[in-house]
Amino acid sequence: MPLSVIDKKILKEVADLHEVPSGAYNIRKNGEAAGRNTTANIDIVPKKDKPGIDIIIKPGTKGESVHIPVILSEDLNDMVYNTFEIGANSDVTIVAGCGIHNGSSKKAQHDGIHELFIRKGARMKYVEKHYGEGDGSGERVLNPKTFIEVEEGGVAELEMVQIKGVDKTKRDTEVILHKDARLIVSERLLTADKQSAESNILVELKGKDATAQILSRSVAQDDSKQIFHLNMRGYEECRGHIQCDSIIMGQAQVSSIPEITAFHSDAQLIHEAAIGKIASEQLIKLMTLGLTEKEAEDTILQGFLK
Amino acid sequence: MPLSVIDKKILKEVADLHEVPSGAYNIRKNGEAAGRNTTANIDIVPKKDKPGIDIIIKPGTKGESVHIPVILSEDLNDMVYNTFEIGANSDVTIVAGCGIHNGSSKKAQHDGIHELFIRKGARMKYVEKHYGEGDGSGERVLNPKTFIEVEEGGVAELEMVQIKGVDKTKRDTEVILHKDARLIVSERLLTADKQSAESNILVELKGKDATAQILSRSVAQDDSKQIFHLNMRGYEECRGHIQCDSIIMGQAQVSSIPEITAFHSDAQLIHEAAIGKIASEQLIKLMTLGLTEKEAEDTILQGFLK
Repeated sequence: MPLSVIDKKILKEVADLHEVPSGAYNIRKNGEAAGRNTTANIDIVPKKDKPGIDIIIKPGTKGESVHIPVILSEDLNDMVYNTFEIGANSDVTIVAGCGIHNGSSKKAQHDGIHELFIRKGARMKYVEKHYGEGDGSGERVLNPKTFIEVEEGGVAELEMVQIKGVDKTKRDTEVILHKDARLIVSERLLTADKQSAESNILVELKGKDATAQILSRSVAQDDSKQIFHLNMRGYEECRGHIQCDSIIMGQAQVSSIPEITAFHSDAQLIHEAAIGKIASEQLIKLMTLGLTEKEAEDTILQGFLK
Repeated sequence: MPLSVIDKKILKEVADLHEVPSGAYNIRKNGEAAGRNTTANIDIVPKKDKPGIDIIIKPGTKGESVHIPVILSEDLNDMVYNTFEIGANSDVTIVAGCGIHNGSSKKAQHDGIHELFIRKGARMKYVEKHYGEGDGSGERVLNPKTFIEVEEGGVAELEMVQIKGVDKTKRDTEVILHKDARLIVSERLLTADKQSAESNILVELKGKDATAQILSRSVAQDDSKQIFHLNMRGYEECRGHIQCDSIIMGQAQVSSIPEITAFHSDAQLIHEAAIGKIASEQLIKLMTLGLTEKEAEDTILQGFLK
């Protein structure tokens, strides 16, 4: 299936791709495979019982990447189930973005349901960018569900970004950490207009010396609404830290509902959350350097969401 | 009704009283009035439709106090409704503790339902100590519900302490703050054995320049369980800060579920929570000064809950 100009723009936005990527990839367009490549170490197998693929990464695979971008340029309701088997002691990057171009008056929705098993000692970096565009009045909706299990000594690093054009999103992320496993989450979210975003993250620190660190930053503009449920549960000697910072503008609403629970006296859990507007000193400083108020605001927001 | 030795001990624990207090007071014992005093500025009127009293403080009353301790020395289920009308520009202290002595095998429970209206420019300090004792196997249960409305420029300062002997508690506190109103909450909670405690605090910052500050400190020992829901909602230009610190020991469980929501772009809300054990450096420092581990622990906990 050839890629159109719109497809290429979306690939650039969600996966920083100018052409088809090197290494393993699977491009899904409007519910169908639009390109696939496997390597000696990374196999991609379509599921037989439901839409989606199994991505199987051999133990010990180092420095390879898998791109699995999704393009939605029709007013479909696309649902896909992807399973990742990340072999022991491997070190890989997964790029899993989704972009919607909706020129229709009907809703375009993509629900990506991802399961990731990170085996002993493996490291995975998971980058997910969500993006919407198109001048149709139809909604652009993205509801990702991500389940991650990290075995002993494994590392999962998640970078989840939604910067523009998604009308509605409900993000559910669940992570189980075993002994010595480590999680680093960095979430960036911007909503504007009448958009709404809900992000639910549950982290279960089940193994001794598991550690988790979540940094969530968001900007809510105009009449948009955001809600964050970040839940961290420590069942063993472990450490967890959640930090949520939100900038609120216009008539927006932001709600931050973290939850930390210690089931063990050696669990050490910390949460910090702040909601506020852009600091006026920062604005004034940039404006004295010659920027307009709007430019100063944009500069600060870009830095905040970087 | 004369006060027994047990009654006097309870009055000392919950209200720091050695004899009947000076100023206005109402002592409730086992569901009945055991003593009452009013002053020129403070009236106490029994409710006609349900158990409880109306405490009416004249506008401009300064430096006076009202003691309304409750003693429960029988296995009753005592429920009481108290309403406080705190006149404009007054400055008063309310001491509202409850102590249970349960020598029975049946449950002794006190549910105090308090409504406090703090009128324009008034200041109120509200001190509530909860305490349980007695060698019966019956549970000692305290479920206070407190609703507070603070009018323009008013100040509510709450000191809520539950140190010992309460098997089960569910504390519901709701505060509405109008323009320039201020709330300061200091909560101290210790649970041990199989005790459980739930504290729910909802603060609604409804007026411009309202400010709220909640500091909650708890220690959970043995097999006890604690859960905190602290919810702060800013509807106007306002500032709010919640801080929850918990020390967890033994097989205890602690859950901290704060919630901050900004409905206005000039609302500035911050939350911080931490759950962890006693810092070992602190213990070692005190032990090198000659304290046993137990003594060092107790010293640290006393300082933390002070």
